[in-house]
Parts: sequence; C-alpha cells; structure tokens
Amino acid sequence: MRIAVLGGDGYCGWPTALYLSQRGHDVAIVDNFLRRLWDHELGAPTLTPIRSLPERLRTWHRHTGKAIESFVGDVTDYEFLSTLFKEFEPEAIVHFAEQRAAPYSMIDRQHAVFTQVNNVVGTLNVLFAIREFQPECHLVKLGTMGEYGTPNIDIEEGFIKIQHNGREDVLPFPKQPGSFYHLSKVHDSHNIAFCCKIWELRATDLNQGVVYGTVTDEVALDEALVNRFDYDEVFGTALNRFCVQAAIQHPLTVYGKGGQTRGFLDIRDTVRCVELACLNAAGRGEFRVFNQFTEQFSVSQLADMIQVAAHKFGLCVRIDHLPDPRVESEQHYYNAKHTKLTDLGLKPHLLSESLLDSLVNIAVKYRDRIDDSILLPRVNWREARNDRRRAPALAVAAKAPRSNGKANGRGNGRVRQVSPVPVA
Amino acid sequence: MRIAVLGGDGYCGWPTALYLSQRGHDVAIVDNFLRRLWDHELGAPTLTPIRSLPERLRTWHRHTGKAIESFVGDVTDYEFLSTLFKEFEPEAIVHFAEQRAAPYSMIDRQHAVFTQVNNVVGTLNVLFAIREFQPECHLVKLGTMGEYGTPNIDIEEGFIKIQHNGREDVLPFPKQPGSFYHLSKVHDSHNIAFCCKIWELRATDLNQGVVYGTVTDEVALDEALVNRFDYDEVFGTALNRFCVQAAIQHPLTVYGKGGQTRGFLDIRDTVRCVELACLNAAGRGEFRVFNQFTEQFSVSQLADMIQVAAHKFGLCVRIDHLPDPRVESEQHYYNAKHTKLTDLGLKPHLLSESLLDSLVNIAVKYRDRIDDSILLPRVNWREARNDRRRAPALAVAAKAPRSNGKANGRGNGRVRQVSPVPVA
Repeated sequence: MRIAVLGGDGYCGWPTALYLSQRGHDVAIVDNFLRRLWDHELGAPTLTPIRSLPERLRTWHRHTGKAIESFVGDVTDYEFLSTLFKEFEPEAIVHFAEQRAAPYSMIDRQHAVFTQVNNVVGTLNVLFAIREFQPECHLVKLGTMGEYGTPNIDIEEGFIKIQHNGREDVLPFPKQPGSFYHLSKVHDSHNIAFCCKIWELRATDLNQGVVYGTVTDEVALDEALVNRFDYDEVFGTALNRFCVQAAIQHPLTVYGKGGQTRGFLDIRDTVRCVELACLNAAGRGEFRVFNQFTEQFSVSQLADMIQVAAHKFGLCVRIDHLPDPRVESEQHYYNAKHTKLTDLGLKPHLLSESLLDSLVNIAVKYRDRIDDSILLPRVNWREARNDRRRAPALAVAAKAPRSNGKANGRGNGRVRQVSPVPVA
Repeated sequence: MRIAVLGGDGYCGWPTALYLSQRGHDVAIVDNFLRRLWDHELGAPTLTPIRSLPERLRTWHRHTGKAIESFVGDVTDYEFLSTLFKEFEPEAIVHFAEQRAAPYSMIDRQHAVFTQVNNVVGTLNVLFAIREFQPECHLVKLGTMGEYGTPNIDIEEGFIKIQHNGREDVLPFPKQPGSFYHLSKVHDSHNIAFCCKIWELRATDLNQGVVYGTVTDEVALDEALVNRFDYDEVFGTALNRFCVQAAIQHPLTVYGKGGQTRGFLDIRDTVRCVELACLNAAGRGEFRVFNQFTEQFSVSQLADMIQVAAHKFGLCVRIDHLPDPRVESEQHYYNAKHTKLTDLGLKPHLLSESLLDSLVNIAVKYRDRIDDSILLPRVNWREARNDRRRAPALAVAAKAPRSNGKANGRGNGRVRQVSPVPVA
C-alpha cells in the first residue's frame, strides 16, 4: 500500500513510517521540520540524539534495503501538498503533521493562533487535496482522547446514541477539549466529518491517548534510527518526563492531586494501530472514530509506578504535587471505550514492570544530556501570556550528580522566545 | 453601557449599532469593510444603495444628536484590536465581524480556509483582548442555529442532559454544521467555552436563525441610513431572495424538496436580542447559549407565503424546485428550543402578512437595481472548486419589464473572482 506519513520525522511519525516500511508498504515521509525548530525555540532538545532525516533514511535503507521517499515541505502550503499527491499518489494519508503539545498552544496568543491555524489549515488542505487528486485515498488522522475532556459519563468512540424527549439519534460525542491544541483537534474532527459527508471521502480519526516509550523494533536497529524522546514541560508526555526525573533523582512532578485520569498506550501500539486503520479502510463517505489507547491510569498511579521502577536502579525519588498549571478536574470519573482497534486485531503492549525498567534505563543511558531546568511547568493555563524568557521556576529539588555542567547550559533563563512560524 | 459592535457596518451590525445608540448606549462601530469588498468580488452589490460609514454616521448624528465612534480595522489584527480596547474600554463586545455566508465558504479551498482562519482568529483575538485589557467585558458573540444541523431529536439551547449507562451529565449539544462557514462558528463556540472556563470570562453565544427584513425604526429615519439587502445566491438569505425574485417575476428558487426547516427572525428582533443579552450579562466564567430565532419555517412554506404576498402586487410567480446545491436533508425532523430570550423579555415580531407586503414592497421599490444573473445557485457543495467566473446558469425564467438594461450588466459572465483577503 502507498502510504504518506505527514509529520513522519516526529515522535510518533518516525517509528510509524519505519514500521509501515518494514511491513512492506511504500512509504513517503512528509515533513517541514517545524518540530526540530521548536526544540530551538524552547531550548528543549530531545533527550536522544536524533539524526537528520537524510541520515535516518540512508541508515534505514542500508539495514533493510527499503527506500522511504521524503517530501520536505509544509502541508499548509497547498502547492507543495498537490505535488505530493501528484507524484506519490497515496492510497492512505497518515496525518501527524500538527503542533501536538497542549502547553505550547497555551504559551500566549501567538502560539494559540499558530496552533489552531496550522492544524486546521493543514487538515483542510489535506481534505481538499484528497478530493481533488485522489478521492479514494483514506485519511488516517491523528486526533486525541483529549477532545472528549472528562465528562461524567462513559466516553464512546466518536458517537453516542442520545434519547431525548421520546426521540433518539446517534450524534457526535460532545467535546470538551482542555487547551487551544486540543481545541484544534476538535475543529479538525468537525471539518473531516463534514468533508466525508459532502465529498464521500474516507476517514478514520484516531483519538489517541498519551503515548509512552520511544523504542520499536525498527528504531532499535541502529543508533542512527533513534526516536526523539521529549521530557520538557512543553512537549514531554507525563510518563516519559517521570522517567527522566527519576534518572536524575529529581522529584516526580505531579500536577495537583494527580487524580487526572487519561488513556495511555505504548508507542509500539501507536504504529500498529495506524497500520490496522490503513489496512481496514473506512468506506466511501464514512467518518470513523477509534479511541486509540490500551489502558487508563491516573497521573499519580504513573508516578507511583516510576518511583518503584527507579528504586531498582538505586534511584530514590519522591513525588511532589505542584499546583496544577492546567485548568482541569483533579479528581473525576473516567471510563473511555476502546474496543474498535482490538476488534481489528490489536494486541496491546500493556505497561509492565519490564517496560518501565527499560524506559528508566533509556533515561539513565542519556542522563548526561538531561537539562533539569526544563522540567518544571512554566506555562500556566490561567495566564494569557507566559513569558518563557524569564528564569525558570526556582523550586528545583535535589538532583543526581552530573558528569558535566554543559547539559544545564540551556536553562539559564536567557532562552529567547521566537515567534511561531506563520502560515503563508 | 459602552458597547463595541464588531462588524457594525454589515447587515445585522449596522441596525444593531443604531438601535443600541438610540437606546442610550455609548456605541463604537468596528469594521474593515470586507463585506463591501465581497460585493465587488462577487459582482453582487446590495439591492439598497448603502452609503459610506462616515456618511451614515453623520446622518445619524444629524437626526439624533448621538455620536457613534468608528474604528476602522481588522479584528484579526491584534494591535488594532488592542487599540480599540484601550481607547474605548468596552463593557460589552457584540461580535458580528465574521464571514457569514455558507456559499461563500464553499466556493473553493481558498474561501474555505479564509472563512475559517478569519473567523477563528478574529474570535481568538477578541477573547485574548478581553482577558488582557477588560476581563469584566461581556462577549456577545453571533453564532448560528446552523451549528446544530438537523438532528432527529429536539435541539436545546447549547447544552443537553445526557443519560448514559446509568450516569448522567450536562454536555455541549452535539454539533453537525453544514458548511465551512457553519463549521467556523462551531470552532468559535468551542474556543469561547474554553476561555470562559480558564479565564473566567463572560460570554453569550447567540445561535441566530436566518434573518429577514432590512428595516428598523432607526434605519427608516433617513435614506442615508438604509441597511444593506442581499439577494444573490451567496449572501442573500432565503426570504430576502424570494422577495427580489417576486419583484421581477422570476420564479422563486427552492432548493430540492424545500422541506429544509430552519429558525427565522425579523431583523428588528436581532437588534433587540443583542440588547437583551448585553443588559443581562453572563456571570464571570459563564458560557451561555441562546437560540436566537422566533419561528420555524420550511423553505417551501416561505416560498408559498411570498407567492401569495406578491400576488397582491399583481406579481405572478411560480415556484421552481432546483437540484439542491447543498448537501443537506430535504425532509427532516426539526424542533429547536428558543425560550431564553423571551424569558429575558423579547416580544417577537412574527412573520405577518403586512411584513411580507413591506418586504416585497422594498424589492419592488429598488427593482431597477436587481441583477437577475446573480440569483441562481452556482456554488455546489459537492464540488471542491466552484469557478464563478464562468457564465451564470442559463435557466433564467420570465422576468418583469426592466427600466434599463444596465442593472444586468454585471452578470455577463466576466465577473473576475478575487482571492479572499488573507490574514496578516
């Protein structure tokens, strides 16, 4: 199958592209490297030393004999996207090419506007390009479980049957997203549903949970294929961040009470879910929603598990409860359905002791690259301007010995905040 | 009360600004005249000869002694918007400043992207400006009943209590908007609800029905205060368009079966509803939704009523059913609640015989300005590119005698389509 992975240089996109290539699909990676630019903007590089895309692709070819094409450009640029469709003729588009961090979207007005315009326009362009060039092409779009928020009822997969005043209908599940980023995904979902209806497009919205881990079989083939691993307060997902904190014996930073419960999944399941969606395409005119996660945990549960795993490495960390920088329920009901992907054959990698060990192990392996100044939250949902140029929060607790001081050099409070790249 | 009317030069904004001024409020009009530019883009000027904003405001002052301030600029320009907030210090913002035509948003990709970016960014800017400069300011935002679509259950005012698997919650009413324009309003609603939550803003989302009429007491004071009256396939709302068609004995063009049922209201109720919302502000942190319409009609019912009213003017028109250019249900259940504004004191102007007469009368009065080439639908929802430069549809039926041929000169197929103005 000819599959274009938009955002194929990123945290989920890269291992997905490799996995699909390994499985025998013809893969093209589409990326504009904005994610790498944000490393510089935030002064928060990936823990793992990722290589340039050309080097990654050369390494992949050397190991497997498989060629992955690359298209360098921005999906908000329709001319560029048109070229991709005309040259590659994708049968499926896997669309990761969005700004994906809630805190990034909450930095200030510019970042909020950038996130929504970038994500919404990119997805609109993809929809128009499919309609114009490749109407049978199946859109596999990465959404987020965060679109639903935390309602006091069970969360269904995209749609819910509602009985009301003696009548009933199956309607889109009501959305209560919790950041400008999550809102952008809700906007996308509405736009995609509409285009499926008017143009009879095929689309699958993968409402993904929080991803953890960084290694897949493909990524593990060579150090030059290593995946990015974000641990900073902006792009680092909770479990990955806790592992890094444990590695340097920094307290695990739980926001608020820690009762915030979310769906989680291993990155090895991300790549498999995407392939399952591609192999089992939505029908013409069908807008389909899968909840893509395998287990629910509260943030406190995760912190407890990492604390135990770290102990085996001789790392003693305490758990700190910080004031929650987000506006969210800290204790709530949460029960989200997620059977559609297992019905298609997903065999989940559940969060095990051995996986936790390997996660902590990665953080320990790269401990010298950890910058402890980017761990604590500096983006507060209650503020309309979060000036990240100011010195980071001072409440940094005991840390492990550092082999050199250089890794800390970026957190000196002189990080210059650049504007997000505007849409052309 | 100090009220800024964003989009105060437009079809709803202008009479609203005058009404609020007449009622003793301090009013500022904020507009960038994009709506006037679209007249030129589409070759479809307002039926009524509207005057420039300065002339309008001078005339208003001469008649009433009341001054309305004007701020000329674009709400997607945050610096401009900041100036408004700092200089005018509004207690309420009435936000009409959006691209408001579904067909305009469906012309092609550029118009879809423009509509969503313009509307979403404008509203985000307003929210940030309130947060930054005037956190007590009440946002009165024009939404649309079209956000709900046509579910098979009763439509509530913004929220619905859902019982599911033995639990219940009150959640946002599920949205099924039917154009890129309607989608932009759904995006806005989600963004506004979120900002009310995180920043404790006050907001009222007025989900307005289809507005008809053009005259209010204020507008009627002087010919130089006349309101715009759109009758073309892009910006003309159904009832207004039917009146114009009747005036030139052009068949009334009902799309499809005509069973499409919507909420409607008189423009005199629009202005009153906005004032009621302003006078009864939402609480801090409250996101409130009012369904702003007074009666439901199907499109066929409206056509029948206009046919009867026209007959009294000696105008015989038939009703044509054209293939529906939109993708929508042509027969469906529709029952939308609309009690919150009447609870606040709205006394509706229901659609009466005498009002229908006066509407047809306006169309007859300006008959010489009617261009019959812009009546028939040329924007098809099923197409991704509707090239309006092509000659208009040829199926134009019998028409009334014309006093000169000039009015038809714009419909000669050479209308050049300009790009929508991009966001800076």
